[in-house]
Amino acid sequence: MHIRGRFITFEGTEGVGKSTQLENAANTLKDLGIDVIVTREPGGTPMAENIRELLLSPREEPVHETTELLLMFAARAQHLHNRILPALDKGQWVLCDRFTDATFAYQGGGRGVPAERIALLETLVQGEVRPDHVILLDAPVETGMARAKKRGELDRFEQETLAFFQRIRDTYLARATAMPGNYHVVNAALPLEQVSASVSALLAALVKMSESA
Amino acid sequence: MHIRGRFITFEGTEGVGKSTQLENAANTLKDLGIDVIVTREPGGTPMAENIRELLLSPREEPVHETTELLLMFAARAQHLHNRILPALDKGQWVLCDRFTDATFAYQGGGRGVPAERIALLETLVQGEVRPDHVILLDAPVETGMARAKKRGELDRFEQETLAFFQRIRDTYLARATAMPGNYHVVNAALPLEQVSASVSALLAALVKMSESA
Repeated sequence: MHIRGRFITFEGTEGVGKSTQLENAANTLKDLGIDVIVTREPGGTPMAENIRELLLSPREEPVHETTELLLMFAARAQHLHNRILPALDKGQWVLCDRFTDATFAYQGGGRGVPAERIALLETLVQGEVRPDHVILLDAPVETGMARAKKRGELDRFEQETLAFFQRIRDTYLARATAMPGNYHVVNAALPLEQVSASVSALLAALVKMSESA
Repeated sequence: MHIRGRFITFEGTEGVGKSTQLENAANTLKDLGIDVIVTREPGGTPMAENIRELLLSPREEPVHETTELLLMFAARAQHLHNRILPALDKGQWVLCDRFTDATFAYQGGGRGVPAERIALLETLVQGEVRPDHVILLDAPVETGMARAKKRGELDRFEQETLAFFQRIRDTYLARATAMPGNYHVVNAALPLEQVSASVSALLAALVKMSESA
């Protein structure tokens, strides 16, 4: 019996296969008898999804970096309090497509927002709550972008330059190095079956860890 | 010649006549040869108006107080950087229907968000920018609510209780007492012509002050 579920986030630049691996991870956990929900950021509740639309739709008006940062955390506050924390309290495991690491990577590394500003909002919104595990799907930026473009029309973020995404990848990798206990870096440039096998094995290991904890 | 315009905000609880007095103030300034824009919060730019809709539309999902607070400041960041500051830099006077005092009053006094959390976001979004003058239209809560109800359907804020609005009025008055140099309290319970005459006289005095500054 788990008293509290585990909060696991999936991170990475565009086109690294987060959606596929979230589904794979959820199936792995279900096969192991875990009650799991899959959600995403920005979004995860009706209101947070409305905020997501505001953030992602291309628009003529320039979006100030502080506006973007606060909208991300507004959606996060709603998602955390109305969906993630209630699920964890019920003993469910929560698999989330992006979380605050993405803010450090995209708004921090990508747009140059100072990390202290992000950390300040992280504490304001989350208090002490952090993901139990961050699974970073890592691949060269060019590989991911080529895949993202194949999916069709690009959103406001996907329209950015390769240099922007390179800074994001670097920020993710730097955070993984700084917090090795929570981060699990998966090589997402490998063939899909190998990536899926790595992610499944990792989830199985996390379940074992949680049972012996 | 004014190098920088003046930033004047209009505050007060529901139904105190802010829209009427903003129009009156704008006309007074125009008659005195001042280049003036009238705007409002939350809102004032297309994206900030989209955030306003998110905030004001009644919804089933409970809106977490942190979400509300961050959305208010997200709209404010957009409004400040894309509209208010560019206008002031051009020498225009900016009359704004609500600003950060409303956050201290509604989210702070009304919902009980600690003032330090609001002050932290105020600094994050505005840096050192504060209104040059705050015109507080003050009336008993019952008077204003009766007027607001006559206008028709109530938004998510207007549906709150009298006690909620009483805390908001108290917070406004406490801030006016604490910062007498920036605040101008106008008795909005008086007949309309008297309120309008007070506001016009006040604006004329502010123009004189700015010319001798």
